[in-house]
Amino acid sequence: MVKKDIILSIDAMGGDGAPKTVIDGVAEAKSRYPHVKYLIFGDKKKISPIIATHEGLLAYCEIIHSEDEVGYEETLSRAVRRGKKTSIWMGSEAVKNGDTQGFVSAGNTGVFMAMSKLNLRTLPNIERPALCSLFPNQNGETVMLDLGANSHCNVRNLVEFSIMGMCFSKIISGINKPLVGLLNVGSEEMKGTEKIKEASSILKNSDLDINFYGFVEGDDIALGTVDVVVTDGFTGNVSLKTAEGTAKLYTSFLKSAFESSLLSRLGYLFIKPSLNKVITKTDPRKYNGALFIGLNGIVVKSHGGTDAFGFANAIGVAVDLVDRNLNKSIAEELDRLYENSDKHIFTNGIQ
Amino acid sequence: MVKKDIILSIDAMGGDGAPKTVIDGVAEAKSRYPHVKYLIFGDKKKISPIIATHEGLLAYCEIIHSEDEVGYEETLSRAVRRGKKTSIWMGSEAVKNGDTQGFVSAGNTGVFMAMSKLNLRTLPNIERPALCSLFPNQNGETVMLDLGANSHCNVRNLVEFSIMGMCFSKIISGINKPLVGLLNVGSEEMKGTEKIKEASSILKNSDLDINFYGFVEGDDIALGTVDVVVTDGFTGNVSLKTAEGTAKLYTSFLKSAFESSLLSRLGYLFIKPSLNKVITKTDPRKYNGALFIGLNGIVVKSHGGTDAFGFANAIGVAVDLVDRNLNKSIAEELDRLYENSDKHIFTNGIQ
Repeated sequence: MVKKDIILSIDAMGGDGAPKTVIDGVAEAKSRYPHVKYLIFGDKKKISPIIATHEGLLAYCEIIHSEDEVGYEETLSRAVRRGKKTSIWMGSEAVKNGDTQGFVSAGNTGVFMAMSKLNLRTLPNIERPALCSLFPNQNGETVMLDLGANSHCNVRNLVEFSIMGMCFSKIISGINKPLVGLLNVGSEEMKGTEKIKEASSILKNSDLDINFYGFVEGDDIALGTVDVVVTDGFTGNVSLKTAEGTAKLYTSFLKSAFESSLLSRLGYLFIKPSLNKVITKTDPRKYNGALFIGLNGIVVKSHGGTDAFGFANAIGVAVDLVDRNLNKSIAEELDRLYENSDKHIFTNGIQ
Repeated sequence: MVKKDIILSIDAMGGDGAPKTVIDGVAEAKSRYPHVKYLIFGDKKKISPIIATHEGLLAYCEIIHSEDEVGYEETLSRAVRRGKKTSIWMGSEAVKNGDTQGFVSAGNTGVFMAMSKLNLRTLPNIERPALCSLFPNQNGETVMLDLGANSHCNVRNLVEFSIMGMCFSKIISGINKPLVGLLNVGSEEMKGTEKIKEASSILKNSDLDINFYGFVEGDDIALGTVDVVVTDGFTGNVSLKTAEGTAKLYTSFLKSAFESSLLSRLGYLFIKPSLNKVITKTDPRKYNGALFIGLNGIVVKSHGGTDAFGFANAIGVAVDLVDRNLNKSIAEELDRLYENSDKHIFTNGIQ
């Protein structure tokens, strides 16, 4: 596929190692995606010298100076009040104005989401955006959403998340007819809340072009039972962080096992190469880059604690989705939902 | 401590390997807890020959014949209709009548819970029971509830779960002032649903004798940030199963790493003894036995797929809690909540 040139907004001031980690990440991304240029938002005095350390990078970047920064601890209201001179506001405004096609930031999640939503608004027919990302599973990757954008979700949100997640999976994982499941406490139809039961019934009975599996449980995420796991932002966030915590616990148990005797230290030397493959496979940096799906523009949140390699991966998510025009594909599926389907798909109206 | 003799109800017919696994588990438990005797509920013709294979076991057991079994796939209404001749009904009835002090079953969770609740009712001042169990963490074990008894919980439930979880932790983990946290999507006070915010405020501001930490996130479960993690049954169940799925995924990645080359197979031989310690530490059978906390009687659910060792551990949970009189300790804490505290602890009344 011949790729059209694209420009991305980059927030240079967000994340633990900003702006150095961010600029180093852009440099790494530059060699991977030669058709991408960057508007870098942030403190010009701090950014320029770092760009200068990467040969040839300046030709791919334009620095747009922003005066203020959004702190990690900042409340939403305070940030939005001071907002319009921050790198996050200016970066998403550039997407809105069509200067860039997407935006990557490792900054404060709540502020990033709120400002992006204020500037970009949701796609037509989408009530709320969701935070969407990938988990490793037995066979590859599971798309999961919402990972924390909305603590409360209604039936309509869950149905829309299912459609958006399916489009994301098609594009990112290249699966033709992704299998979609709703996260529940059991796979039987009688289980769970009224909300999920109604969402399931809509996904099952409408003439939507969706490959709906039904209910899945927490362990199905890592099993890869379905390609897309849909849930509300509260459950999704707890589930994501439980998985991270469990993986860390396991790693620390292993580490102490390897260090517990001379014999096991020796054995570790032998298995190290194979073990490194496992570590690479489950490297959280590989999965860095969660999309605020459902906005008019590609807005990707990088983990605040990632390094340059991880930040480049978050840029990669944005590039892929812009290249493949995710939002057009979502809009088409939504048209199908609201026009070709029976009009009264949500029995309680917009609830 | 001199232990008073106790008698437990055992459902011989629940679980994948029933009745053999159950009876083998009772035999294992017999050697661990010589002060415990058992009423075994189930098909006498099947059970008797298995008991006979364990020398001396018969002296500790009385078989109460039950005609019907509850299938794993059975709906609640059907089971309750046919109910009174099943081992689950009869086992919990024995607790109600004072013939036994606790009940262990590996049968259908929903039916077990419903019948136990019908027979035993909740403790005074407890609106709903919760499913409560232990997770391994970096420093020991985390108590977690609700793991799936109630998909919806109100403020009152969450506060009551906190008190019950604290009592469970004191007794099972021997911690004097267990630290209690509410599971949320962030640790800041402004985050999460209104329900958890209100529960948090009650736990913080009442004169309850509770060591309340505030909000915790999904990764805090494995980190062991607090001794007791409280959440609704939907989130708790998804979180538990996500952790199980992640651990299995990690194990399968490791297994394929160890098998991937001659060198790593050799290395595996060296690290095997240390690795076995990790496997023992995280052995799900060790954590088998979840309590339906909040009922008038100790009711413990064993995993349906466990073996005799695992079933004996579930019996161990019941024995510990009967020996140490968990329900008395819960009742005392609740008295403190409703009598010594300001009377209007729940601002919205019983919601």
